[in-house]
Amino acid sequence: MKIAFIGLGNMGGSMAQNLLKAGQTVLGYDLSEKALQQFAESGGIVCDSPQAAAEQADVVISMLPAAKHVRDVYLGEMGILAVMRAGSLCIDSSTIDPQTIKDVAAEGLKHQVQVCDAPVSGGTIGAKAGTLTFMVGADDVTYERVQPILSFMGKNTVHCGAVGAGQIAKICNNMILGISMAAVAEGMALGSRLGIDTHALAGVINSSSGRCWSSEICNPWPDISPNAPAGRGYTDGFASQLMLKDLGLAIEAAGQVKQPVLLGGLAQQLYQQLCLQGNAHLDFSSIIQQYLPREN
Amino acid sequence: MKIAFIGLGNMGGSMAQNLLKAGQTVLGYDLSEKALQQFAESGGIVCDSPQAAAEQADVVISMLPAAKHVRDVYLGEMGILAVMRAGSLCIDSSTIDPQTIKDVAAEGLKHQVQVCDAPVSGGTIGAKAGTLTFMVGADDVTYERVQPILSFMGKNTVHCGAVGAGQIAKICNNMILGISMAAVAEGMALGSRLGIDTHALAGVINSSSGRCWSSEICNPWPDISPNAPAGRGYTDGFASQLMLKDLGLAIEAAGQVKQPVLLGGLAQQLYQQLCLQGNAHLDFSSIIQQYLPREN
Amino acid sequence: MKIAFIGLGNMGGSMAQNLLKAGQTVLGYDLSEKALQQFAESGGIVCDSPQAAAEQADVVISMLPAAKHVRDVYLGEMGILAVMRAGSLCIDSSTIDPQTIKDVAAEGLKHQVQVCDAPVSGGTIGAKAGTLTFMVGADDVTYERVQPILSFMGKNTVHCGAVGAGQIAKICNNMILGISMAAVAEGMALGSRLGIDTHALAGVINSSSGRCWSSEICNPWPDISPNAPAGRGYTDGFASQLMLKDLGLAIEAAGQVKQPVLLGGLAQQLYQQLCLQGNAHLDFSSIIQQYLPREN
Amino acid sequence: MKIAFIGLGNMGGSMAQNLLKAGQTVLGYDLSEKALQQFAESGGIVCDSPQAAAEQADVVISMLPAAKHVRDVYLGEMGILAVMRAGSLCIDSSTIDPQTIKDVAAEGLKHQVQVCDAPVSGGTIGAKAGTLTFMVGADDVTYERVQPILSFMGKNTVHCGAVGAGQIAKICNNMILGISMAAVAEGMALGSRLGIDTHALAGVINSSSGRCWSSEICNPWPDISPNAPAGRGYTDGFASQLMLKDLGLAIEAAGQVKQPVLLGGLAQQLYQQLCLQGNAHLDFSSIIQQYLPREN
Repeated sequence: MKIAFIGLGNMGGSMAQNLLKAGQTVLGYDLSEKALQQFAESGGIVCDSPQAAAEQADVVISMLPAAKHVRDVYLGEMGILAVMRAGSLCIDSSTIDPQTIKDVAAEGLKHQVQVCDAPVSGGTIGAKAGTLTFMVGADDVTYERVQPILSFMGKNTVHCGAVGAGQIAKICNNMILGISMAAVAEGMALGSRLGIDTHALAGVINSSSGRCWSSEICNPWPDISPNAPAGRGYTDGFASQLMLKDLGLAIEAAGQVKQPVLLGGLAQQLYQQLCLQGNAHLDFSSIIQQYLPREN
Repeated sequence: MKIAFIGLGNMGGSMAQNLLKAGQTVLGYDLSEKALQQFAESGGIVCDSPQAAAEQADVVISMLPAAKHVRDVYLGEMGILAVMRAGSLCIDSSTIDPQTIKDVAAEGLKHQVQVCDAPVSGGTIGAKAGTLTFMVGADDVTYERVQPILSFMGKNTVHCGAVGAGQIAKICNNMILGISMAAVAEGMALGSRLGIDTHALAGVINSSSGRCWSSEICNPWPDISPNAPAGRGYTDGFASQLMLKDLGLAIEAAGQVKQPVLLGGLAQQLYQQLCLQGNAHLDFSSIIQQYLPREN
Repeated sequence: MKIAFIGLGNMGGSMAQNLLKAGQTVLGYDLSEKALQQFAESGGIVCDSPQAAAEQADVVISMLPAAKHVRDVYLGEMGILAVMRAGSLCIDSSTIDPQTIKDVAAEGLKHQVQVCDAPVSGGTIGAKAGTLTFMVGADDVTYERVQPILSFMGKNTVHCGAVGAGQIAKICNNMILGISMAAVAEGMALGSRLGIDTHALAGVINSSSGRCWSSEICNPWPDISPNAPAGRGYTDGFASQLMLKDLGLAIEAAGQVKQPVLLGGLAQQLYQQLCLQGNAHLDFSSIIQQYLPREN
Repeated sequence: MKIAFIGLGNMGGSMAQNLLKAGQTVLGYDLSEKALQQFAESGGIVCDSPQAAAEQADVVISMLPAAKHVRDVYLGEMGILAVMRAGSLCIDSSTIDPQTIKDVAAEGLKHQVQVCDAPVSGGTIGAKAGTLTFMVGADDVTYERVQPILSFMGKNTVHCGAVGAGQIAKICNNMILGISMAAVAEGMALGSRLGIDTHALAGVINSSSGRCWSSEICNPWPDISPNAPAGRGYTDGFASQLMLKDLGLAIEAAGQVKQPVLLGGLAQQLYQQLCLQGNAHLDFSSIIQQYLPREN
């Protein structure tokens, strides 16, 4: 089986490496010379264009920054769907709006190419370690086909529903995550200002109805959760600007279906404020900074 | 040991009953004749005033609606601190702002009476079943004294810190809870509108970083969490107006220390909108109503 | 001078009629047969495609629903820029994001075609009456050229800056408008609930620092502002869904430059909630409904 | 006529001076020795207590920091209502919640003392210059009595309704003001980031539907409004902490009547964030700082 991999950045590069380690034949394309060189050094076959990679492949996996790149790669003038073999398969692991991948999949059907969405959670660390979770949107038959391929790059796959459902699940989950992280930040900062010991407070929350992933695993207050970014200056985590991107997708998708998301809308702006003030590259739990006095 | 119980309403009445069942001598006071009658029928000794109950007691427990009642009972013209014996003990289980109980405790010290705060979680069901959790604010010595007494009425006690820390822990926890419940409501409603199966969505959230008490135990979407209020028309839960009260306390306390809580402030208003539109007595997970089209 | 008019809907149709009344030769295109028929009956020359209209014209005016239509008409496979004569002029009066019109203008330069943005305020009534205000983004020379043309369709033109500035001015103004309308609604509803006479309250606001267009000219409380939509069941105004569209553009543009707009983000969601609950076609001052008890 | 003045701070001190300049006999009380000394130097008669001042007076005017001081002065153990002559008059110019002054007025009636509320706008500059605006809550007869007295200290009096209506009008107006100032800050900051000239943008807003006091008279962007605090480093204006206080009163009053004010609740938190970050003493238009990159 030949796999074409489009987009060999921080995430995609590591995922492609795991395919190569698993003994797969991988054809790759990226705009960056440096990314292509690393890919070649690991045994990948470098191609000149997405089309050049895709036309030889049984499976295409794409990992791209935004919806417009997905549209360009699949649907554009030099789009890959036009050159792919009937019966072949595409897995888009980019995080984009659900409508775009539905559009791509509809176009794929015209070429007898199955397209599914499989956005990930786990970040660059999970991509490198091969421990990603894939949220897959695909029909049952396609899901059976993609699962073994994804297993080379991750440890969990969840079948979320038809095409687009992977993206929907991801943006809904991450919207809740972005809000609850800021909520925990507010609760911890408030408690601290009111004079309670923050370990005692975290203890109460985590054994009570306020507990959540953000309070237990990734508490934004330093030295509460072991190994959380808060304990190392908010480095090596899920960057604020990526949370901002996901919140933007959620708010955009909500706007497309005219669904109000009041806390979601405010959370988007809070992370935007956080990024504006210089924390775009820090873990999103650095939102706690917005609730503390400025150190001058 | 004689215990005086001030405030025999839905919560306090059941708590006093559990003290009586445990064989304690309980002197009680309430403004309601009906509450006093039920108390008497269970073996309690009815008193004419808080002072009448407190002056004979070793321990006073109070369960009152709001801070002003606490001030009246403890500090007012006919306040109980003035008549209590040196060395006696007061446990206030009302949910009020932290400053009020600190003021009461400071006044208590003048009379050699220890005052601590022990607000509860668990609601009327937990009060009746004797399964409440108490969040206790007290010094170490006092905490040792109150724990066995509280064990007659609950199954957990958490020592949160000095006087006031119980209230601080409760309002911080409940502020996070109120926000995360609304966040889950937004995420579930958005996913549903975008076309994902809500069980699949809940499955992803609960195995991922969006998981929280509100998504797992008390999901606002019907038929996700077993036995949650959403499955019975949002009845028999934690009433929206009580969540609104707790958010009000959090926002007020935040204002006293000038601590911004942006999501908390918005959440307060969302539950206020919910109550205004007729859902004050429903479980607070009925906040999902604010995100669905009106059924006309 | 020949003018091509692309988009003959509620707004564009009336604008084209005013050009015809002023004695101009107008070539028109729209997807709707009915719109074309009305245009023909008024003396317009119906064309088969945007290109067919534009290739004969000295000036193109477009009035389209959203950015994707603007891109299709100007830049798409059958885009008009490719067929327009060097030295000709395009005026886009659609309300869209600033970036799109900048992209179109940049492409226009390659064909020696000047493109400017001139979104309007004044609504369908102003379009019909020829009393629109145009917010123009253009260089000084181009502004001199477009002003006499716009004067056939409106009574004011404001030169906001270079290409895109008209859109920027419009979305910033309308974001402030959307927020301040909701703010006045909150203030009037709060005052009324607290027991003040609403006319007295409006009097204080309008002679004090709370005064704004929304409190003076278009107060959301009935019978405060003469002739405001609030006095006629919120009909015949600026529809909530159009305010929602403009807030969506503002939040999207803010996201593109990573500019936090916290109240703007919340306002977008409030109007989204309003539309979800059945008020999409009512004037946006019907936002007051969100602050009143439901009439059941 | 003898006037007692309770509270001779920045505001009250200047107001009392204007009464003295107008030839009135004024008895004064304040906790601050320095304030009393200045008052004495201007010809005022210093008293030992509020009661000492009030028992000799025909009219009492109070200007106090918060509701608890008002309660203490009027209703407390040493409260003035108990010693005032039947038929005398009290004017409270403090900014407090409406309920407190209603309670004081009800108690006043028992002593045949008329109490009305007359909070001000105009700040310390207006207090000094005698150009304050008074928002008066009183019955018609009482309003006739207070108007000539207030005219010594201000240039406008507005009759807002019955007792409490002055406070209601003030907090509703100031809530709208606080929101609209932040809305203008968001709109100006967004426009600037998108590249429009800020003078051009302000020109559009102020001739269009976004115009408000905050955009015209006190624009938060520097050098837009002549003489606005933005042009002098946000000094000598209406301090952020005072806006925060007024928003707190509005949110508290809204909570008492269970009235949702979503933008108001968010605005309170935004100003709280502003104050936390060191701008409590700057004019509230410094809220623009929250929307700009940090200068480090």
